[in-house]
Amino acid sequence: MRVVIPIFPQFTALDAIGPYEVLRLVPGAEVIFAAAATGVVRTESLMVGLHADAAFDEIDSADVLVFPGGWGTRALMTDEKVLDWVRAVDATTQWTTSVCTGSLVLGAAGLLDGLEATTHWSTVQKLEKLGTRYTEQRVVRQGKIITAAGVSSGIDMALTLAGLIAGERIAKAIQLAIEYDPQPPFDAGSPAKAGPEIIAVNATLRDLPPASASR
Amino acid sequence: MRVVIPIFPQFTALDAIGPYEVLRLVPGAEVIFAAAATGVVRTESLMVGLHADAAFDEIDSADVLVFPGGWGTRALMTDEKVLDWVRAVDATTQWTTSVCTGSLVLGAAGLLDGLEATTHWSTVQKLEKLGTRYTEQRVVRQGKIITAAGVSSGIDMALTLAGLIAGERIAKAIQLAIEYDPQPPFDAGSPAKAGPEIIAVNATLRDLPPASASR
Repeated sequence: MRVVIPIFPQFTALDAIGPYEVLRLVPGAEVIFAAAATGVVRTESLMVGLHADAAFDEIDSADVLVFPGGWGTRALMTDEKVLDWVRAVDATTQWTTSVCTGSLVLGAAGLLDGLEATTHWSTVQKLEKLGTRYTEQRVVRQGKIITAAGVSSGIDMALTLAGLIAGERIAKAIQLAIEYDPQPPFDAGSPAKAGPEIIAVNATLRDLPPASASR
Repeated sequence: MRVVIPIFPQFTALDAIGPYEVLRLVPGAEVIFAAAATGVVRTESLMVGLHADAAFDEIDSADVLVFPGGWGTRALMTDEKVLDWVRAVDATTQWTTSVCTGSLVLGAAGLLDGLEATTHWSTVQKLEKLGTRYTEQRVVRQGKIITAAGVSSGIDMALTLAGLIAGERIAKAIQLAIEYDPQPPFDAGSPAKAGPEIIAVNATLRDLPPASASR
């Protein structure tokens, strides 16, 4: 089973690594990180450099596609070469999935037309403009397409997917392997739970594109 | 605030990337991935290559040290050069932390002597042999030392740490940024919850050191 995770400048590391850490443990799975060219690709913070082991041109099929999000998805949404690649690979997949704003790329490629989907809570309107019905759920499945909400939700999505691919016993064993028994010290993981004060603090965080890509 | 995350051959990606994704959003934080030498370092699956931007020799201090786990910790536990570096950096930190079997390295360096600590559920005995009292909690704090249980628990640990460093409002805003409102599809994230049948399935997963490091 070939799992392809595209990475691109200004992606979000946990969007990609969360699902990787689950799906790599599915028996027979090979996870390949792919990018426009092989080599190190930096996240939006520039603090993480992840190596792409394949170029998009080298990948013409996948059993599972996992599109992560990040600020860089904005550029991809109008990159016809990438969108053509997404459409071509999707035509070969058993499962096409996204995490966070990765769904905006699937949507821009036309893969979510008329479907229910989700994205990071801060980009709901962008998703709806792509002809998609936003659904406020952490993991949304529509046929072979599964979209996940923001960043950490990719872990929940991948466990769901592992269950669909390999059965519940394997998926539970993977959950145990990564000791995913979450106990967040706070309960502020969604806008409704966080409330307006914390949403205002969130807007002050440095979750912004870097001014320069000097590293 | 300088956060240093050591990486090494056969580390576990999510152990490192979970805390990174939280701590990078603490105002003023810079996260540096460091290794024996700069360049790409591979996880135990070989499927992830993360770039180390600094060599251990270049790092003589840190505000926060986050030691991830993985099969590669076995080699580090007898690597006196690495253990000396861990002790030297720890002498400068405000917080010294670990995820998963990263605590075995802290313990081998003598930093956990007589303290309560945790690790991945499968390596409890190894931790106890290091003069440490195992505590069955997801996040264990002893003064400036915080250890986390397996893999995904690093996210909970880092949110706890973000709260200690920057206050609860910032930590909650970070939780919202990464939309950490976990909803695992199964409830098998600890040995007690998974039960003996799933523990037996877990033992069959390919969570083993690779036969070769060909990639």
